[in-house]
Amino acid sequence: MPRLRLALAQTNPVVGDLAGNADQIVEAARAARAAGADLVASGEMSLTGYPIEDLASRPSFLKASRHAVEQLAERLQAEGLGDLAVIVGHPDGPFEPRLLDTSNAPTAIAKNCASVLQGGRVVTTTAKYHLPNYSVFDEYRVFIPGDELLVVRLKGVDVAVIICEDLWRDGGPVGRVMEAGAGLLLVINASPWIADKDEVRLPLVTHRATENDTVVAYVNIVGGQDDLLFDGDSVVVDGSGAILARAPQWKEHLLVVDLDPEQSTGRTMPAGIRRVDVDTRPVGQLDAVAPDIAELPDDLQQLWEGLVVGTRDYIEKNGFRSVILGLSGGIDSAVCAAIAADAIGGDRVYGVSMPSQWSSDHSRSDADDVAERIGVQYSTEPIADLVAPFERQLKLTGLAAENVQARARALILMGLSNLHGHLVLTTGNKTELSVGYSTIYGDSVGGFAPIKDVPKTMVWELAKWRNRHAEAQGLRGPIPENSITKPPSAELRPGQVDEDTLPPYEILDGILDAYITKALGAADVVALGYDADIVAEVTKLVDRSEWKRRQGAIGPKISGMAFGRDRRLPITYRPTSL
Amino acid sequence: MPRLRLALAQTNPVVGDLAGNADQIVEAARAARAAGADLVASGEMSLTGYPIEDLASRPSFLKASRHAVEQLAERLQAEGLGDLAVIVGHPDGPFEPRLLDTSNAPTAIAKNCASVLQGGRVVTTTAKYHLPNYSVFDEYRVFIPGDELLVVRLKGVDVAVIICEDLWRDGGPVGRVMEAGAGLLLVINASPWIADKDEVRLPLVTHRATENDTVVAYVNIVGGQDDLLFDGDSVVVDGSGAILARAPQWKEHLLVVDLDPEQSTGRTMPAGIRRVDVDTRPVGQLDAVAPDIAELPDDLQQLWEGLVVGTRDYIEKNGFRSVILGLSGGIDSAVCAAIAADAIGGDRVYGVSMPSQWSSDHSRSDADDVAERIGVQYSTEPIADLVAPFERQLKLTGLAAENVQARARALILMGLSNLHGHLVLTTGNKTELSVGYSTIYGDSVGGFAPIKDVPKTMVWELAKWRNRHAEAQGLRGPIPENSITKPPSAELRPGQVDEDTLPPYEILDGILDAYITKALGAADVVALGYDADIVAEVTKLVDRSEWKRRQGAIGPKISGMAFGRDRRLPITYRPTSL
Repeated sequence: MPRLRLALAQTNPVVGDLAGNADQIVEAARAARAAGADLVASGEMSLTGYPIEDLASRPSFLKASRHAVEQLAERLQAEGLGDLAVIVGHPDGPFEPRLLDTSNAPTAIAKNCASVLQGGRVVTTTAKYHLPNYSVFDEYRVFIPGDELLVVRLKGVDVAVIICEDLWRDGGPVGRVMEAGAGLLLVINASPWIADKDEVRLPLVTHRATENDTVVAYVNIVGGQDDLLFDGDSVVVDGSGAILARAPQWKEHLLVVDLDPEQSTGRTMPAGIRRVDVDTRPVGQLDAVAPDIAELPDDLQQLWEGLVVGTRDYIEKNGFRSVILGLSGGIDSAVCAAIAADAIGGDRVYGVSMPSQWSSDHSRSDADDVAERIGVQYSTEPIADLVAPFERQLKLTGLAAENVQARARALILMGLSNLHGHLVLTTGNKTELSVGYSTIYGDSVGGFAPIKDVPKTMVWELAKWRNRHAEAQGLRGPIPENSITKPPSAELRPGQVDEDTLPPYEILDGILDAYITKALGAADVVALGYDADIVAEVTKLVDRSEWKRRQGAIGPKISGMAFGRDRRLPITYRPTSL
Repeated sequence: MPRLRLALAQTNPVVGDLAGNADQIVEAARAARAAGADLVASGEMSLTGYPIEDLASRPSFLKASRHAVEQLAERLQAEGLGDLAVIVGHPDGPFEPRLLDTSNAPTAIAKNCASVLQGGRVVTTTAKYHLPNYSVFDEYRVFIPGDELLVVRLKGVDVAVIICEDLWRDGGPVGRVMEAGAGLLLVINASPWIADKDEVRLPLVTHRATENDTVVAYVNIVGGQDDLLFDGDSVVVDGSGAILARAPQWKEHLLVVDLDPEQSTGRTMPAGIRRVDVDTRPVGQLDAVAPDIAELPDDLQQLWEGLVVGTRDYIEKNGFRSVILGLSGGIDSAVCAAIAADAIGGDRVYGVSMPSQWSSDHSRSDADDVAERIGVQYSTEPIADLVAPFERQLKLTGLAAENVQARARALILMGLSNLHGHLVLTTGNKTELSVGYSTIYGDSVGGFAPIKDVPKTMVWELAKWRNRHAEAQGLRGPIPENSITKPPSAELRPGQVDEDTLPPYEILDGILDAYITKALGAADVVALGYDADIVAEVTKLVDRSEWKRRQGAIGPKISGMAFGRDRRLPITYRPTSL
């Protein structure tokens, strides 16, 4: 029967790598062609990576992007793929900056675009209509909005092409293009994952499909880009709300699906919507393909795999051959080591045990144990002889002496990094970062922080999940049971445990969720039932630690409120009665 | 003769310190009353400080701000100042968050407001109409724009009240309120200083005054808030372009000026402009006051004083009693020490000489010299015995061994900071930060970086200016001549000088200005006449150092493109043919 065969290319671009990203699209186009597809669509900014941040205001970058789009069209044609319609995401704008008189600050000149390539040329281009400007998104800063919607007629079908945020707005472009008679809605996205994202994204796609009685084809990029995780999870939903096809999370994938959308009536489009003929041939007569319908894993598996992908992509995209981290025997470093080993293999992970005079026997044996379970490159560097000269020369006591231990360990890791080119991973969790329970320039050193956005209580859950996951496959779990069960301690003085200084982690994480994620004031946190003195102490610690967080490594955002570009607060700040 | 006496209160608020900021406004109101003023206006967000960043989306903060405005009105009345009209800047919005369905991310709920207080109550409130969203400003993220303009009738005069960005827009609110018949334009501002700001700001104020044949009264906040410097420089310009009054830069000040504006015709205001009667009494019969007309100092003095104010306010607003920094004998640390001493006095500045085996005799004697000239608390901590154990244990060579020296110094400064509560100042300049010519967790450690945005070539200019300035007062310059004239060196290996590794600073700073400040692509930088290989090398260094810069201390923004929130670029980035 006559069918429109659609391919969604879930690619993993690197910001700025125009040549490499184009290679991924060409490869997807080859596979789509081989699968008999009529159209292959890649995600938002698939050619440049996302987010490009202030590169969008740099004329030389826009020039290079424009050139790359044109070159890609020519290359597809040259490779015999010119018949296929290929949709690619990229910025586009003038090659002259727009500088403010007031400060010469560059302002937005570019649009966030999708282009349709066919027959060796860029047939048409559309721009994102609604720009997100909250959370990690600064799109009003770097883009100007589109002012026209696009419908492309492809083999008799009117395909509406919109970009990411345009799908989310009630009363937005979706209703307009569908009312105008489009037979299929194609949305290209760079939609960062956070925990429970599937609880809003799929229902949204389904809602748009059913309210407009149309097929919605949703293609997302995949992979880690600095602190953002893109999970893919591209999906095609029909007008009844049924999932026709779904790509796996966290993997590059080409999702091929057959559709039988209504043929274009040829009606004139209303003002503000442009229709462009891309391919005037009729749809082919094809035997049906059985589309992939991936199952979404459970929440903890999604999270673990996201952390693994974010860590792997930071390592690989930045060209590191190996990583190094301190193994204390504690839960945080064990989990980070396991994430790193899952990301790049234990043989590329260097673990260093750095015991002090205060280190317990179990911290050494647990560190040995995790190293052995994971199969990391393992060494031991005691710090006593490194710390003593500082203590003697500077007459350090108390906190100053504790911090020198953490900082001596930092010097070891950075020294080995300088010698061997390892990326240093820092193992702090979100709870620590929140209250500043870490030594700046000590245990905080490193280029990437795998569990930066994971609260301590969730670190335990992840560890247990990872062990269960291994055991379900008949393997030994990577995290020593003892690292999970023993009371957390920084071991910077004899007999120290975290709860000497901090409230129990269940309570602390509850307060932090209310104060940080939900952005409640202290009084409102107390109203939830927490002790007022503890809330006062915790919120003070959070406010006072902002300077440390600003100097911390980036790490994957997994929550609705991650430290970094997601939560922007002053360092100099005197809260009054909050 | 009848006059309207206007007072502009150039206050120095601290973000979040509602009580302290209110105290400043009450004090200004007292002084304004004593000077016979009818109206005293403070700057944008004078009650909360500026910028409040994401605090604007926190309902508890908005509730506290609303309460503080009302309390301030009551307190002014209680202190017998109720007759005076007082204009105060603050955020205002609902006490419920607006969370996105998609991520629970809080979005803008507040407006950036100015309220008129009189008779113990908040008489009326207006909101900023145009929101800046470029450079360091994220106002679309945190505010919603106002939709109505305000004219207050005060003693028979229609005074239009607008906020900051509203002045800058051609075709914006200024024309509308003046056409509607306002007799005086009052603009409240939080306008960050950068070098040469006076070359655009005063001409703009003058242009608005002359094009509308009106008096423009421009009041700005003063002081440092994290990386932003506010210089004050409040000014009153009449319709002929003459400066009637001007407050000094970098100081809290009450600027009092007599005006004789046209009386209100009582004409009905057009749609979108609201007129509110604030004080129906006639203007008083007053003897003229002679207003202050401050002279603006030359460029280098403005810059020096700005760095001093930014450093002082970071120290004082964050409650530090003292600062500590390494004194190497080089120009950067000498200039930072002099800035710190000018900010808080040499007796609160702790300088540490930390010679290594590679330190030259002159580096020690120059460090001694600067310490003695400035009168800092001075000590010497050799690093040889601290570094040797690391070199031995880890078998460090090359760069790894060089970095351990810088990091041992960091441990000394941080250890002394932990012992004594000093703020650590880091002395890197913009050129170093640009190309990553520093040791992360080494010389980069610290909470504040006074010359972070000052290129190396300008550091020399500043040093020479400061010495000339001292000599003009019959004093000895604080910077040793030798620190200015000797070739810069990190002294991490024998005989090392910066130019072994880097192009000459004049060339390097030229390339960096083109690539960073002007955001030109590499090819465009070469087209300016720079060597292509050098440009390729420098731009690569800049791109690769982003991860280090992200972990660096904040410091005062003095240029149109400072590192930090002003220049937002990815760490993971593979530039292609740029």
